[in-house]
Amino acid sequence: MTERIDFQTDPSRYRHWRLAYEGDVATLFMNVDERGGLFDGYELKLNSYDLGVDIELADIVQRMRFEHPEVRAVVLRSGKDNVFCAGANIRMLAGAAHDHKVNFCKFTNETRNTLEAAGRESGQYYICAVKGACAGGGYELALACDYIILTDDGSSAVALPEVPLLAVLPGTGGLTRVTDKRKVRRDLADVFCTVEEGVKGKRAADWNLVDEVVPNSKFDEIVAERARAFAARATRKNGRGVALTPLARNFSFNGSVTYSSLEVTIDHKLGIATIAISGPTEPPPADVAALHAEGAHTWMLRCARELDDAILHLRLNELEAGVIKFRSHGDPALVLAHERLLLENDGDWFAREILLHWKRVLKRIDLTSRSLVALVEPGSCFAGTLAEILFAADRSYMADGQFEGDNRPAATAILSEANFGSYPMSNDLTRLQTRFLGAPERVESAKARSGAPLLAHEAHEMGLVTFAFDEVDWDDEIRLFLEERASFSPDAMTGMEANLRFAGRETMETRIFGRLSAWQNWIFQRPNATGEKGALKRYGTGMRGEYDVRRV
Amino acid sequence: MTERIDFQTDPSRYRHWRLAYEGDVATLFMNVDERGGLFDGYELKLNSYDLGVDIELADIVQRMRFEHPEVRAVVLRSGKDNVFCAGANIRMLAGAAHDHKVNFCKFTNETRNTLEAAGRESGQYYICAVKGACAGGGYELALACDYIILTDDGSSAVALPEVPLLAVLPGTGGLTRVTDKRKVRRDLADVFCTVEEGVKGKRAADWNLVDEVVPNSKFDEIVAERARAFAARATRKNGRGVALTPLARNFSFNGSVTYSSLEVTIDHKLGIATIAISGPTEPPPADVAALHAEGAHTWMLRCARELDDAILHLRLNELEAGVIKFRSHGDPALVLAHERLLLENDGDWFAREILLHWKRVLKRIDLTSRSLVALVEPGSCFAGTLAEILFAADRSYMADGQFEGDNRPAATAILSEANFGSYPMSNDLTRLQTRFLGAPERVESAKARSGAPLLAHEAHEMGLVTFAFDEVDWDDEIRLFLEERASFSPDAMTGMEANLRFAGRETMETRIFGRLSAWQNWIFQRPNATGEKGALKRYGTGMRGEYDVRRV
Repeated sequence: MTERIDFQTDPSRYRHWRLAYEGDVATLFMNVDERGGLFDGYELKLNSYDLGVDIELADIVQRMRFEHPEVRAVVLRSGKDNVFCAGANIRMLAGAAHDHKVNFCKFTNETRNTLEAAGRESGQYYICAVKGACAGGGYELALACDYIILTDDGSSAVALPEVPLLAVLPGTGGLTRVTDKRKVRRDLADVFCTVEEGVKGKRAADWNLVDEVVPNSKFDEIVAERARAFAARATRKNGRGVALTPLARNFSFNGSVTYSSLEVTIDHKLGIATIAISGPTEPPPADVAALHAEGAHTWMLRCARELDDAILHLRLNELEAGVIKFRSHGDPALVLAHERLLLENDGDWFAREILLHWKRVLKRIDLTSRSLVALVEPGSCFAGTLAEILFAADRSYMADGQFEGDNRPAATAILSEANFGSYPMSNDLTRLQTRFLGAPERVESAKARSGAPLLAHEAHEMGLVTFAFDEVDWDDEIRLFLEERASFSPDAMTGMEANLRFAGRETMETRIFGRLSAWQNWIFQRPNATGEKGALKRYGTGMRGEYDVRRV
Repeated sequence: MTERIDFQTDPSRYRHWRLAYEGDVATLFMNVDERGGLFDGYELKLNSYDLGVDIELADIVQRMRFEHPEVRAVVLRSGKDNVFCAGANIRMLAGAAHDHKVNFCKFTNETRNTLEAAGRESGQYYICAVKGACAGGGYELALACDYIILTDDGSSAVALPEVPLLAVLPGTGGLTRVTDKRKVRRDLADVFCTVEEGVKGKRAADWNLVDEVVPNSKFDEIVAERARAFAARATRKNGRGVALTPLARNFSFNGSVTYSSLEVTIDHKLGIATIAISGPTEPPPADVAALHAEGAHTWMLRCARELDDAILHLRLNELEAGVIKFRSHGDPALVLAHERLLLENDGDWFAREILLHWKRVLKRIDLTSRSLVALVEPGSCFAGTLAEILFAADRSYMADGQFEGDNRPAATAILSEANFGSYPMSNDLTRLQTRFLGAPERVESAKARSGAPLLAHEAHEMGLVTFAFDEVDWDDEIRLFLEERASFSPDAMTGMEANLRFAGRETMETRIFGRLSAWQNWIFQRPNATGEKGALKRYGTGMRGEYDVRRV
């Protein structure tokens, strides 16, 4: 695993998926290349997947929204004959390090959530057409779709065989979507999750594991019909798609990565990654037409895509960077001007998609298991959308006043409309609502100050930043914090942050990342699953797992 | 750990707590006996606790409700001079097996929840009077109280030092109550949970870590005042307390335990514990006065207490019994008659307390990490309160019709008012609401059938039981299920059941058991905490923990 995992791809490079477009319906064929695994040591048989397959899927779901606004329904089906999808590749899982397993699951979960939100948010509904075995992660992929059609051919079944077969959980949302989305009765869910061969035919529909079971002879016809019906539900979007052109990136030997709107640097000694965001240097496009003309180059989209890539890069490739430090520099008024164009035109599908992309990127930050700290320094531009990063961070430090010999303006933070509804977290609350769970009136008084540049003492008084320090203390305080953080157990940080970041309300999403994933992480550490005699390690050897039978 | 852990105690045997009563205010002094640890190898210094200390606390909170209905406020304070409570004993944690740690935390969490509910449910409010260090589990105990008063003596502080000191989480509800109950702002919570020495004085009140900081000179006076104020809020209860007399129990060499209203037997080969409940054999007391006269001997209270003890015994002492099989026998009409007396008189504090005890016992069952199965057989009495066990179980099997050569009546299940509101789960829904999350109309139609004896085919059709089998298939189906369950990884079962049992809505309680505990369990497996060089193992050696710095 020394090679860098790259989250950028494009249709010309897909090895595992094929797309066909016909009017407002797209068909997405999963046809995993057995020899296309991201690492050596396993073959992706039976449409099983690894992170590489999922990176392509994430790219597809993302491009569908930007490049194919005409699509209103996507049929997901297998490109292979006798199998829909066998789930995550077991040998890959058995061979992967704990951190890779956990991060792999997190990314696949994020991709499922994005796919699931596409109908509601962007009017692109996913219809899953299941023929052949649909097991484990395969069924979890189906669960993320808006509609599941299963053929009644006497053998095709849906299954979650993880528990009996591998002694792990269906952790890509499976258990949670079965109870919370499909609302399968809990005792039937217990039966379903312990039956290796799964459930087929009428029973699958009776238990609500699928929406419809159809005769094999009518399968294609009914799938097409349902796709048309979903397409008819969605709003037609005007205008042509916007190509997501390749990101401008430059990786350096010392770990730093330079993008057009941000730079990542790594302090390997202390284990700190810094993401420094550059605000826009030009005014925003004059109107929506000009926005479309700028396309993927417009600052708001460029910065979102680059930030997303940077976060994923750090998660998978820089495991020892336990802290991510966010900085920014630029003109806050320009950030707000670019943002305003989108907010004022959110009836335009492209403007809206850019905001929705920011929503996903910010959620990705919330879910990143690194200590997040934001430094609001002289000359910074944490305004509106970028100010949201202050509220995603575990702590924020704000510099009070100008610094000697530094002619940049004193640090300010500026709130905008975007901080009060554009970017809900996984818990469906805004970051400010979550922050002020005990004092909702503070959200209101913050709203009343929208647009005003807030100096450190004001932002601190309003509870928008954790600390304000003047130049005398600034460097020392930051250094102390970073050294302290580096001295803590990374695992304890992960557990603590996973609890403190998501106060109060829970949703299906937070339950997947909080409850289900935490249990799965626990199980991924248990000898019964991942020990030398555990079920996951022994899979395929012909030997069953040997279990310590004590219940915990 | 070969000695049996006993959850029964009484005031004459307390080693760690002392009580003083004055009118409607009780004072509870924590004064842990250093040499009173449940196991060898550690001393309970600085009012630190182990399971034995907590068993006494649970007994106190329980008896307070039954034996001291006159108490309306309880002041919790330290019986030692310079320390309030240092939390769970670290050497005990470091030396304990994973399963003991997890079960210890679960029990202490249940005790905190019971204490926390006492004000709301029974009008017994807990006021925590903090003088001296109040750290980790000590502060988590305070967090469970209704009101926290901290003295401003320049040194007394509240703290959650687990993360920096031990590389584990404040897992007895700490993180969750800080964000959800105290609604401490998340970045301040981050600071608080990483400052070893904690927070004292005005800042503790400003951050809402405590309700009030008072001058040391006025401490006792203000504590007494607040206790009186809370007492005045609570409703006065009439009548004298009911003594919780010792349970009649008989432990046999083969693992079976005989109580007056139930019997526990163990199949060591398959790892199955059976709890067979005997319904009442006598009619209920004629009225409330007679109920009070029966006291702890009345069937509803006796059965609840015995069932609670049996569950706890299995959890801590029979780790290899991965399945708990519930059976019952008796006259369902008598069960309902006993229950009815309580339901019709829930204005009487004692009747109400018995129902509240059942609520807690049933929650304890929900949270027991064993596969739970209920067998509804001929001659059984799963009616009303006992029927609730069918809905707590992961699966239920119901016998269809009479069995040959068996003259007991065909199995029935009977619903009562108690199934529709008396016993909410931790998620604040009834078990039937949770069961029919996707079909709320089914709850209504079940309600319409209250009181009717439901035969197997009806109960099955109504979705109240998982399977109905006639005598031809009965034995085989049960055997197959039990064998299958025994072949699965106990850890995978634990994770699966923890997810499937609590669909939909989350509350502070479910977040403590679901999110927080799952992360803690994960951390309890991580070398950074529990490895030979981990912080928990090294505590007290003068050496810091050595950490693998990779983030997961």
